[in-house]
Amino acid sequence: MKEIDKSKALKVPRELLSFLKKEDKFLIATHINPEADAIGSSIALSMALETLGKKTILYDKDNIPDFYHFLPGYKKFKNSIPPKISRQSPVVLLDCNSLERAGIEGLNFRHSAVIDHHKTEGFYGDIRWIKPEAAATGIMIFYLLKKLGIKITKDIAINLYSAIAVDTGTFRYSNTSAEVLRVSAELIDAGANASYVSKHLYEIWSEKRFALFISTLNTLEIRDYIAMTFVTREMFKKTGTGPADTENFSSFPRMMKDIKISAFFREVSNNYWKVSLRSRGNIDVARIAKLFEGGGHKNASGYKIKSNLESAKKSLIKAVRSYM
Amino acid sequence: MKEIDKSKALKVPRELLSFLKKEDKFLIATHINPEADAIGSSIALSMALETLGKKTILYDKDNIPDFYHFLPGYKKFKNSIPPKISRQSPVVLLDCNSLERAGIEGLNFRHSAVIDHHKTEGFYGDIRWIKPEAAATGIMIFYLLKKLGIKITKDIAINLYSAIAVDTGTFRYSNTSAEVLRVSAELIDAGANASYVSKHLYEIWSEKRFALFISTLNTLEIRDYIAMTFVTREMFKKTGTGPADTENFSSFPRMMKDIKISAFFREVSNNYWKVSLRSRGNIDVARIAKLFEGGGHKNASGYKIKSNLESAKKSLIKAVRSYM
Repeated sequence: MKEIDKSKALKVPRELLSFLKKEDKFLIATHINPEADAIGSSIALSMALETLGKKTILYDKDNIPDFYHFLPGYKKFKNSIPPKISRQSPVVLLDCNSLERAGIEGLNFRHSAVIDHHKTEGFYGDIRWIKPEAAATGIMIFYLLKKLGIKITKDIAINLYSAIAVDTGTFRYSNTSAEVLRVSAELIDAGANASYVSKHLYEIWSEKRFALFISTLNTLEIRDYIAMTFVTREMFKKTGTGPADTENFSSFPRMMKDIKISAFFREVSNNYWKVSLRSRGNIDVARIAKLFEGGGHKNASGYKIKSNLESAKKSLIKAVRSYM
Repeated sequence: MKEIDKSKALKVPRELLSFLKKEDKFLIATHINPEADAIGSSIALSMALETLGKKTILYDKDNIPDFYHFLPGYKKFKNSIPPKISRQSPVVLLDCNSLERAGIEGLNFRHSAVIDHHKTEGFYGDIRWIKPEAAATGIMIFYLLKKLGIKITKDIAINLYSAIAVDTGTFRYSNTSAEVLRVSAELIDAGANASYVSKHLYEIWSEKRFALFISTLNTLEIRDYIAMTFVTREMFKKTGTGPADTENFSSFPRMMKDIKISAFFREVSNNYWKVSLRSRGNIDVARIAKLFEGGGHKNASGYKIKSNLESAKKSLIKAVRSYM
């Protein structure tokens, strides 16, 4: 059976490798509201660098959501940065490419590296390895560890497999290439378990969360092939849930074949909504989010808007119309 | 990157290879209520044999469901068998291992081969290649075509990829091995498209069906760790849907981590219900269905019951209690 085509394997920048080899201590920071690619990639890099005798501090401004506590090593994450750290240690930004996205815009690091698969128009980072063609930052970390000659342990494998699983919709999105499957196969060889990961990603809802999900589906309204659902603070209160429980809610209405976009509105505060967009494929929702100063990928993006719900819906519909 | 471990590749019986090479015309039959593994494996084998200059007749007693019409070549299926065919041609049974399961128990073939990954207690077939360790019959056909030296065309690849995708829950079930991912990677190389297949498998719901789904979720009641939902004939009427639209509804409540069983009650006629059970893993729901003269697998089973809804629920709860 065919090996991975080496010409397709991601090339790791030499300066990144020598930077990681040279320094002794790193701050590894990832984006706010972290998901499995952010968390898994960061833990995997941290574990790998520690086998090389390095010290790492893992930072996320937000807490790791409960449902990601199955990721081995999630406890390594701190949500505060020791003072003076920015003078002592260089930073590695993972799965994001600006200090703002990591919620540490005030800090000034003596050296910095960025490893990310998101498109960017920013310029942060002394060393920048940004590959929008990678399905997940986890794929980039996989190649990086290979290049550093680090053995992929079971714990690293579970973290990277989960990172890739979430960012490809467990191999359902269009970024699922033969390469993605082959990398994932190696991670299974190294100890990741597909059904264990899937169960923890998809079958760990609390009853409260499921109740919120049903309430949210009841808000479904379809206009202009846009399936719109929402959740209010009142609904959180009624079901005893919170924003983290809405993870992935925006994906479900995509099951409908005649829908172009699924839009999920979450009430942050009075007349202030966070909007998650999911595309069925043809519409680049990152471009739509950008109209509202948001961002994301072609198939998944988001933005925030100050207005009442009906106006927020109308402005989205208008934006989609102008796009078409 | 590592090649497929040849020791793990399925060995194709030599007698099966020579049988397929020797004969000129085959009846390929698969099981009633066919799903993607049955359909995709059959089409792939038919296309492959035809490149060798053979003739094939594809048979399924039931029609190919609409949502599988994206599989290239599905129109090759007939649901009648030309008279005398059993005297003229040998049969290849795919994804099942008895004539009963294919709905052709009356026929007598001069020669027969069985290719299946289901466990069996039967003995049908002059040549029997039965591999319960294979995640899908599609995997077996993949190795068979390799062994026959047949090029995997794009159409064959889409059929086999879909077969594997459905039987592994698109790589979420415990049968998802590194091998499964590597075979699937080769099928992508050959022209299968992961997101195209997933879209057709999971994102083809009508708006009506989604409305019925929401109504069904609104009936959720949890007692004794059993998540119970139902659909009435009235609900079908209101949403303009029918029984086929409830396919897979019973799976969703399984997302809840504290649930042991998901039970979905569908009203067939007055005081007559069809019950679908899905287990989260530990309870053998086939055993519970059997108490009501139903059947199925460990994780998915069903039965019918004559009673009103409340009594049907109560008798299920009682049966589960007596099981524990």
